[in-house]
Amino acid sequence: MKKIAILGTGIVGNTIGTKLVRLGYTVMMGSRTNNNSKATAWVEASGQNASQGAFSDAAIFGDIILNCVKGEVSLDVLRSAGAENLSGKILIDISNPLDFSRGMPPTLLPGLVNTYSLGEAIQDLLPATRVVKTLNIVNCEVMVDASKYGDLTMFVAGNDAAAKQEVGALLQQFGWNDILDLGDIRNARSTEMMLPVWLSIFIAGQNGHFGFKVVR
Amino acid sequence: MKKIAILGTGIVGNTIGTKLVRLGYTVMMGSRTNNNSKATAWVEASGQNASQGAFSDAAIFGDIILNCVKGEVSLDVLRSAGAENLSGKILIDISNPLDFSRGMPPTLLPGLVNTYSLGEAIQDLLPATRVVKTLNIVNCEVMVDASKYGDLTMFVAGNDAAAKQEVGALLQQFGWNDILDLGDIRNARSTEMMLPVWLSIFIAGQNGHFGFKVVR
Repeated sequence: MKKIAILGTGIVGNTIGTKLVRLGYTVMMGSRTNNNSKATAWVEASGQNASQGAFSDAAIFGDIILNCVKGEVSLDVLRSAGAENLSGKILIDISNPLDFSRGMPPTLLPGLVNTYSLGEAIQDLLPATRVVKTLNIVNCEVMVDASKYGDLTMFVAGNDAAAKQEVGALLQQFGWNDILDLGDIRNARSTEMMLPVWLSIFIAGQNGHFGFKVVR
Repeated sequence: MKKIAILGTGIVGNTIGTKLVRLGYTVMMGSRTNNNSKATAWVEASGQNASQGAFSDAAIFGDIILNCVKGEVSLDVLRSAGAENLSGKILIDISNPLDFSRGMPPTLLPGLVNTYSLGEAIQDLLPATRVVKTLNIVNCEVMVDASKYGDLTMFVAGNDAAAKQEVGALLQQFGWNDILDLGDIRNARSTEMMLPVWLSIFIAGQNGHFGFKVVR
C-alpha cells in the first residue's frame, strides 16, 4: 500500500492522517521541526503505521503528499519540504489562500485570487510534481467521510490525468462518489473562489457540516 | 399583481420577461433607447401585458426591477434608470462582474471581487433601493424553471429582510424550492465568486443546464 505524507499538524492534518491510518496506509506527519509535540501526540494515538518528522522527512517518505497547512504558509512549507523530494510525486493540495488580515470572515489573499490561485502557484513552484487540487471546498470532517453527509460532489483539478485518477481512487475511500474533473490546475482558481460562499453558508447556518452537489 | 421592469434586452432579459408575462405579471422591458428593436420584438411576441421603454421608463413603471444587463455596464445603466425612480423599490440584481478583457473564460472585474462586489456597488449607488442579489449562479433557462433541473439551492443576499421575503416568493414561482438567505448584501461577493466554478463546470461538461445544491 502506498505511503502517504501529511504536511501539517493542525486539525485538518490530524483528521486526514487518522483516516488514512484507519484505511491501512502508512502515514508520516511532517512539521516544521522533528518531534513537534502535536505530531508526536498524533503518532502515539495512531499506532504503528504512523510516524512523524520534519517536512522534508515526510516529503521523502511519501509516495503521495497532502498539503494540509494554511494557505498563507503553503509555499514556504513546500520550499522547506524540498522540490527534489517532491519530484515526480503526487501532491494533493487542499489549502485555501485565506487572508485573515482584514478580520473575519477572511477574504482571499491578493495575488492568489481571480487571475491566479494557490494551486497554480504551488504547481509553478514545483514543476516536476503532479499537483492535484481537491477537497478544499468542505471542512475536514466532511473531507474524510463525505457520504455520511449526503450525495456530494468533489472537484479535482490538475495537469496530470493519471495523478487525478489516483487521487480519485483515494477520494472514493473517503466516501466521495461524485468526482468532477474540472481540467488543468488553472481551475484551482474556481474551487478556491468557493471559499467565500462556504463561509457565507457557514455563518448563515452556524454549521460546517455541509457540501455542494452539482446537479447536472 | 405587481408590475415588473426588466432592464436589458438580451437573452437573460428576454427569458425572464417572458416567464413573468406567462406568470401573469405586467412587464416593461427597458433599454438604452425607447423603441429598441429587440425590445419591440419581445413586446410583439409577448402580448398585451408586455411593454417597452427607456431604462428610466421601466424604472418608473416597475414595483420590482430586475437588473439583467451585463455586469460591466450595470452601474451606468442604473444611473441612467435614475436613483429617484428606483427609490424604495426592490431591485433584483442577477448580474455578474465578468471581465472579458483577458480572453476566455472571463475573470471577475478587478475592484469588484474578493473585498467588494457588484451587488454592494449597486447598493452603494442606490442607498434608498432595496437590492437583493440572487439568480446569478445559474444560466437563464435554469433561473426561470429551476425544478425542471433537479433539487437546486438558490441564494439570496440583501440588507432588507422584507425585500428578500418578497423576492423569495417570486423565486418559488420560478421553481426554486430551496432558498438560502446568506445575509446582507456583502454576501453578494460570495455568489459572484461562484462564477469561475460555474464556468469550469460548464467548460468541463459542455452543458450549462446545471445548478448547485447545498446539502446540509
